[in-house]
Amino acid sequence: MKAVVLLSGGMDSAALLLYLLDDGYEVRALGFNYGQRHSKELGFAKALAEDCKVPFSVAEMGNLRELLPGSSQTDESVAVPEGKYDEDSMKATVVPNRNMIMLAIAIGHAIAHDCDAVAYAAHAGDHAIYPDCRPEFAESMARAAGLCDWKKIQLMRPFITISKASIAALGNNLGLDFQKTWSCYKGGDVHCGRCGTCIERREALHLAGVPDPTIYAVDAPSLKTMIENDWHLPK
Amino acid sequence: MKAVVLLSGGMDSAALLLYLLDDGYEVRALGFNYGQRHSKELGFAKALAEDCKVPFSVAEMGNLRELLPGSSQTDESVAVPEGKYDEDSMKATVVPNRNMIMLAIAIGHAIAHDCDAVAYAAHAGDHAIYPDCRPEFAESMARAAGLCDWKKIQLMRPFITISKASIAALGNNLGLDFQKTWSCYKGGDVHCGRCGTCIERREALHLAGVPDPTIYAVDAPSLKTMIENDWHLPK
Repeated sequence: MKAVVLLSGGMDSAALLLYLLDDGYEVRALGFNYGQRHSKELGFAKALAEDCKVPFSVAEMGNLRELLPGSSQTDESVAVPEGKYDEDSMKATVVPNRNMIMLAIAIGHAIAHDCDAVAYAAHAGDHAIYPDCRPEFAESMARAAGLCDWKKIQLMRPFITISKASIAALGNNLGLDFQKTWSCYKGGDVHCGRCGTCIERREALHLAGVPDPTIYAVDAPSLKTMIENDWHLPK
Repeated sequence: MKAVVLLSGGMDSAALLLYLLDDGYEVRALGFNYGQRHSKELGFAKALAEDCKVPFSVAEMGNLRELLPGSSQTDESVAVPEGKYDEDSMKATVVPNRNMIMLAIAIGHAIAHDCDAVAYAAHAGDHAIYPDCRPEFAESMARAAGLCDWKKIQLMRPFITISKASIAALGNNLGLDFQKTWSCYKGGDVHCGRCGTCIERREALHLAGVPDPTIYAVDAPSLKTMIENDWHLPK
């Protein structure tokens, strides 16, 4: 089986890449440059793909930033929210219809390279925040992926029922070096430790009992403080 | 109601634009530059949108050409096939998963601009050739469009059950100036008159009883010859 894996450079898609390789898949990795504030993640994705000896391509999304204004990930006039993801403010990180756009291009890439499947790392914890991470959205996209060409492309989302902590444990068991993944929405030298993705990363590794090798900024709250604040930022 | 219309510069989407405006929609038009051999169509789309006083944007599809190799529309090493569309060779004009990619971006554009719907001009005659023009594909995409965001986006394909000839008749009734649309896959000064889209255009206007104002190349077969050859190229 040949699969295209959506590889962002974050820990979830990195674990997915290792998971598929471990399962015997022949893999092509695909990253997206959709006008993020920084493309640091993509450098991590490229390095990881090289480590795993799989081909890596980047879909350059041209002027998507102008076409889909309003998200803090693409629009510099919107501030990056801090704190845990389940707060309303985090909705500002949503790029309109990002998942459908990425899946559509990945499915086209899979067809062009005679692959059987597209795999992505949506997980159980995504649902509440991102409407396009809900299982029913994925099911309609899976149906479309089976109809869009003469060849049926399978849409794989093996992590859809498990938590980010379970992904962390799985990645750890597969030998993933978490230092070779990048989560922070801000593009600093080190992880900021206080944006939504940093907090999720810290929480997932902690809950999985995996030692966190990530270097966080000197002003990041300590792990103890994060736990005491129920993984929100200290008031 | 506000709708994003996929506007290619061809006659079908031009008729769709007029149809929606006539129906009272507030419209935004969206074109795609996905690495076509020529972007002549897009100039026609832009001029038409200006005529109709609707905003027009172009989604620049970056390196899609490299990611989705193998189609004559994006890959210069593949020849443009000539003759009627229902021949196997015309499959070479298919850009893998193009419709899903365009719809995904249009839906994101609709969300970002607070529109209610995305409309595109897939018609009954497309089905046999393009798997992603089949009604069941559109139905799964319509479902995904209703789930991808907090706001439901409606997917409109009002021409899905009618022929290209019926679209020609409808456009004519709405005052469409067919000289202001472009169909030819080759990007010459005038329509070549012998590629798949040119033949479809000539046939549709003829069947609709609409005088064809298109200027075709001097070596294009005559209308009489096309009819006698059952709209294939002369042997």
